[in-house]
Parts: sequence; structure tokens; C-alpha cells
Amino acid sequence: MTLMTSWVESANSASTDFPLNNLPYGVFSTNTLEARCGVAIGDMILDMAAVEEAGLVTLADEPVFDVPYWNDVMEMGTEAWDALRARLIELLTADAPEQAQVAQHLVPMSDARLEMPFAVSEYTDFYAGRHHATNVGTMFRGAENALPPNWLHIPIGYNGRASSVFVSGTDIRRPWGQLKGPNDEKPRFAPCARFDIELEMGAVVGTPSEGPITVAEADANIFGYVLLNDWSARDIQAWEYQPLGPFQAKATATTISPWIVTRAALEPFRCDTPDREFELLDHLKDVGPMLYNIDLEVTLAPEGKDASTIATTNYNEMYYSAAQQLAHHTTSGCAMQSGDLLGSGTISGPEKENFGSLLELSWGGKEPFTLDTGEERSFVEDGDTLTLKGGAQGDGYRIGFGTCTSKVLPALDDPYKR
Amino acid sequence: MTLMTSWVESANSASTDFPLNNLPYGVFSTNTLEARCGVAIGDMILDMAAVEEAGLVTLADEPVFDVPYWNDVMEMGTEAWDALRARLIELLTADAPEQAQVAQHLVPMSDARLEMPFAVSEYTDFYAGRHHATNVGTMFRGAENALPPNWLHIPIGYNGRASSVFVSGTDIRRPWGQLKGPNDEKPRFAPCARFDIELEMGAVVGTPSEGPITVAEADANIFGYVLLNDWSARDIQAWEYQPLGPFQAKATATTISPWIVTRAALEPFRCDTPDREFELLDHLKDVGPMLYNIDLEVTLAPEGKDASTIATTNYNEMYYSAAQQLAHHTTSGCAMQSGDLLGSGTISGPEKENFGSLLELSWGGKEPFTLDTGEERSFVEDGDTLTLKGGAQGDGYRIGFGTCTSKVLPALDDPYKR
Repeated sequence: MTLMTSWVESANSASTDFPLNNLPYGVFSTNTLEARCGVAIGDMILDMAAVEEAGLVTLADEPVFDVPYWNDVMEMGTEAWDALRARLIELLTADAPEQAQVAQHLVPMSDARLEMPFAVSEYTDFYAGRHHATNVGTMFRGAENALPPNWLHIPIGYNGRASSVFVSGTDIRRPWGQLKGPNDEKPRFAPCARFDIELEMGAVVGTPSEGPITVAEADANIFGYVLLNDWSARDIQAWEYQPLGPFQAKATATTISPWIVTRAALEPFRCDTPDREFELLDHLKDVGPMLYNIDLEVTLAPEGKDASTIATTNYNEMYYSAAQQLAHHTTSGCAMQSGDLLGSGTISGPEKENFGSLLELSWGGKEPFTLDTGEERSFVEDGDTLTLKGGAQGDGYRIGFGTCTSKVLPALDDPYKR
Repeated sequence: MTLMTSWVESANSASTDFPLNNLPYGVFSTNTLEARCGVAIGDMILDMAAVEEAGLVTLADEPVFDVPYWNDVMEMGTEAWDALRARLIELLTADAPEQAQVAQHLVPMSDARLEMPFAVSEYTDFYAGRHHATNVGTMFRGAENALPPNWLHIPIGYNGRASSVFVSGTDIRRPWGQLKGPNDEKPRFAPCARFDIELEMGAVVGTPSEGPITVAEADANIFGYVLLNDWSARDIQAWEYQPLGPFQAKATATTISPWIVTRAALEPFRCDTPDREFELLDHLKDVGPMLYNIDLEVTLAPEGKDASTIATTNYNEMYYSAAQQLAHHTTSGCAMQSGDLLGSGTISGPEKENFGSLLELSWGGKEPFTLDTGEERSFVEDGDTLTLKGGAQGDGYRIGFGTCTSKVLPALDDPYKR
């Protein structure tokens, strides 16, 4: 696959995140347009509500794009998704006869505010990166018992909070919580002192399902992928998480990138999950390459300073694919809905520079690391801006995810004062 | 408080669940009426869509009752709830001048199908009954370490799945899952062999909130309460739940009773949480009696046999109230939405006959118990019908919850065959 050329000139650059090959789906608003569905192409956004109204794209009897979410389209399933993508390519390809009509409905990205691209039904976070699970397990339980006994047999996951999923650009307020350090006699209510990020990919469920589905069906039900930062209050987590798992430690915020990159756009970048120590049970087995080769990067910029890259890794480091996670999620008969969001788990690579959380980068806070600008960090500090970036590199083009960025605001003086 | 008399004769019986004092909110349909909001009164249901259309009840400029959920009303907050209740009492009280008009909109409960009373936004399950936590902890970790260190300081909870909450009357299919018994060399995928119930109360969040809220605010935001049976696959849970908590073990089904009993109806039955070993941190402290004196009962009927009462207990056995749980839920800044459902945790009492799960009643399956009809049980068997009942006993009247009942169907031969 090489670059597909478009009459939108900025889409033909080798460095744009949004060539014609990509066509990711988002929601945008401007000073004059209310929030609606849009498609990124180069440095422009195609106003889908407008092209639908103009009769250039028709997906259903009723309008589906003049709303601030893609859920209606997501629910339609793969045939509709394929038809939409084919029509968009037709309209945006170089020498498209409809160019003049379509061009009227392009909005410069610089004029737009990007909003949540879909309504999150429920949010599930997995723990399916082996390097991360091994690192965290080693810190907490020692190297001998790093991986729990079930880890190599099922993608371990837990339910998160959909109400705390925010789009990139939303400031994140450092939370308060109940804490009890190893040297504290009693617990106390205090601002989180070990606030952290987790570099993840999010899989967005499109087609709903009832009852158990196979890995192949799960793969087909996934509408697309986003970057995902699962903010984590490590000190709150340490005190609360036994025996029933993380709860308030993960409920402050999860940030996602504003563009849903479709499965179709990522197709050329499929790759296999790694070799396995134990054969998986039949219902969880891979049925083809289900991961993707997507380069990932985290930067940290202290208040008023330049950003430093603090980690680089790749989505292909996962032990389980999103399709395997989704299949496992349904084994109990659990119904899945359009808009369910599945976090991959932290995507760390093998070396220190590939670790996807500050917990790992500073080894539990014991080994602070130094930014390019000279500051030391163990955990996230107030005023820091954390940014995830990601993209799949093709031959002369890139399927980019845009950025997933948030600034951390200081904790409130009194969280009960409103 | 004594019985409030109504012109609906069946509401004046000392044994009805639904006297004028109660007025719980549900959703019903009949062979001729589409699903809509209704209020239980004696053995009748008041068709709220019809009385709204007739101009007898007006809560907003737009109709709010001609929909199959109470969420629109729930979102309006306490003033609207109080106004609605006052108007309903006015219309249904003995000698109400509107009797003839209102009577046209009563539907016999025996003609109605009861549906989910509200759309569940997100579902959180707590673990806040001390007898239950002590029993389970003793079985799994020994009597010395029964309660985790955090248990007496925070209401431990975890996020569940909203998509698997069903209304009473829905059959529950025994799930499959990944299991590994203590004597198994490898995990296997098999039908759950230790399927169980958990007797709980569910608190329904009405008023949404952003950021941390106090216990008093949390109490005011609760719209009402339902009976809740949190179906649990104990063998799936044992293999999966470390380190991040229960996941598929709890995702098959949670059953709730069809009537939301309001906080206003329960007001005369408020009681205190029990004495505490450790003082709670200020933000979790009781600010008045926040629990309720509600008698609870579980019955089990084998296929084609009579039901036996297998447990009796009371909601006043909880260590934490729903208001304390909701307040804790928001400490991290977590936004709560109208329609969030909070399970109390299993409500066991001190003695064996007060245990709210079969896991406890059969002490982990080691001590099977005998039903009145002679059958033995360790866990739930195919064809069993499990029913929760509950009510608060006033002076000559009862604030009842109706029943929360489900029959267990056998596991599918092949869960991947559709």
C-alpha cells in the first residue's frame, strides 16, 4: 500500500497524520457550527453533516451525521462502514468529479474544537502488556511472582468508569483520595502524591453483541482505535485495590485522542501477537494477525517548558489483541454495546526507555529520571502536560492518531468547597 | 406514621406492598399499551403517561412519563420528586375529588408486564456488609485475616457492567467461563459449577454530580432503592479475580426488582449504621441515620417444587450506607449520572440463617443445606427459581419492594453456536 493522493493538497504530505489512506472519524465544532461528525483529511475536516445534507453521502434514510457522536454509524456494522469509507475515498480522491461541491464543506482544523468522538457506553481497562505486568509485579511481589498465575491464560481486565472518559485537551485536576502509606499509622484524606499516566490504545466497539462471540467476530465488531491515557493515582490504588481491584484510583480521568482511526485504515499494519509459553484455550486463540504495528510515544512538558520524550514503544508489544480481549469480555454472556471502550493495558516495551508509565520509568519512585530540560520526575507534577502520539508508518504515508494531551492542574484546597 | 388511606381499596390492606404511603415508580406495558412510566398502588398501576396527558399531573413543559424509563424525572432532583409525590398523594388519597378521572387510568397489575424501571448508566457493586466480608474472608484467608486492612476505613467497591442488569422475571442462563480448580493442572473453558446469588439492595442515583460530594449531598441525590441479586460465578471468580477484581464472574447478570421505592417512602424507617471500631475520616462520617430498617428474605424453589426460605436478614446489617458509598465514589472527582446503580454488597446477618449467598450458606460448598422439600443445595442448580423479597414494616402498613425473581436455565451445549 502506498500513499493515496487527494485533491486536498495537505493530505498528500508524507508527514501528515491524515492522508486519504486514513480518514479517521471525529466530532468537531467551530464558532459558527454546532458539534457534529467530521472526517480528518490533511489539515482540514470534512463536515459530514453538511455533505450529508447536500446529498453527497447517504448512509441511512434519516440523517446520521448531524449529531455530536458516531454511535449511530458505529451501530450499523461493517457493511455500512465499508460503504462509507468507499464513498469518502471516491469524493476525496485526486480528480474526483465532486471536488468543487465537497470543497465547500471543508473546515480548517485550526478553526475547529475537537470534541468526544463518541458516547462511551461502558469502559473496560485491561492489563495485557507483558512488560508492564512484569514490571509492576516485580515491584509489588518480587521477580519470582511477577505475573499472576492466570495472566498467561486470560487477558486480565476490570471495569472502569465511562463517566470519567474525556477527550484530548481536557485539563485533569489532581485528585484527593484516601491514602495510607507503609509508615502511616492511620489512613488520611489527602491529595494524590503519586499521580501517573498509562500509555494505552483504546478499541472502540461498533457492532453490539449478545452472548459469547469468537475472536474473529470480535475483530469484526471493532469500529476503530484511539490513543488512551489511563490516569492513575498510585497511592490511592495501593490502599484500595485489594481485594476487588482499582476503583477511585482510576476514576479521576481517562483521556482519549479525538480521532477514531478505523480498522480499515489500519489493515496494512496487522501483525501477530508474540509467541506464547502456554497455548491459549481454543476460544481465545488468534485467527490471523490481530495486533497492529503502531509506533507510540509519550512526551512530558513541565509548565512553560519544552516537551521531552519520556517513552517510545509499539502497540505490537501487547500479549493479547483487542479482539481477544473483546472475545474474553463476552464469555460470561456479557452483552457489549456500541460505544464500549476497551483499554489495552499499559504498553511498555522491553527496555527502560520503552516503559509506558512513570511508575515504571522511576521504578516506583525510587529512581527519578531527568527530562531534557533538566527537571527530575518520579510522578506527574502540577502544570505538567502529558502527550501521547501514535502512528503506523506506511510506504510514504502515515496513519496517524493525532495527539492525546492533557495538562495536570493542582489539587483543590478543599474538594468539598463548590 | 400510620396507614394513609386511598380510594383504591386494595391499597388499604395491611399486607399489600403498595399502600398510599409507598408509591414506588416502575415501567409497565400491556397488550394494548406500550412501555411507559407507572406507579404501583395496591394491586393496580397508575398509568403516568395517561394522567399526564389528561393534565392531572404536570412536572415539566414537555411530557416526561410517556417513555420506558424514569431517568428524565430522576434528573430533575429533589424538589420535582417532592412535588410529584405530593400530587400523587393528593390524587389517590381517600375522597380525592379527582377520583373518577384518575380511576380511568388505573391498570390491573395482573394485566401488566413489568419492565426495567430506568436506564442503568453505570453499575457499581460494593462489599460493605461486615458479616459477608468476614465470612468470605474467613473461607479464603482464614479468620485472622478475614477483613482486608482497608475494609473498616472505606466502603470497598468495584465497577460492574450496566449492560447485564435485568429486571425481575428475566431468566438467567448459567454461564461458561475459564476455570481452574485447585487440583487442575491447566485451566479449561466450561460451564460454571458454582453459580451463586448475592442478596443486596440497590441505590438508584437521581441527581447527577460532578466532583466530590458530601455524605449529606449523596443522600439527597439518591432517588430510591430496589432489591438487587448480583449473580456470581464463584469458580470463574476464584481464577480471575487476582489482581484486578471480579470481571466475567459478575457479568452474566444482575437482577433488580421492578419498583423503585423512593427515599421519601422509606423516611420513617431510617436507622443508624453500626458502632465502629475505627472512626471514619470526616468526609465519610454519618450525618444522621442513613440506613433503613428493611426486612429481607431469599427463597429458592427447585423446578416444579415449592419455594423454601433459605435466608432472612435486614438492610440495617450494612456497615456503610448507600450515601456513604456514593460519597466515597465521588472522592476522586468521578462524575455520577442519573441512572447510576450502586449495589450495597451482600447483606448477611450474624447467624447462618441470615447469610445472603449460597457460598456462605453452604460454607464454600462444604456444608450443603437442605430445603423444606428435601433437596440439598451447595450452589444454585438448573431450574431453580431464586426470589428476593423485602419490605419495611410500619404501623399497620408495609413499604414493600415487590419481588426480585429469576429462574436459572441450564448452560448452553456450545456457547459459540448461534
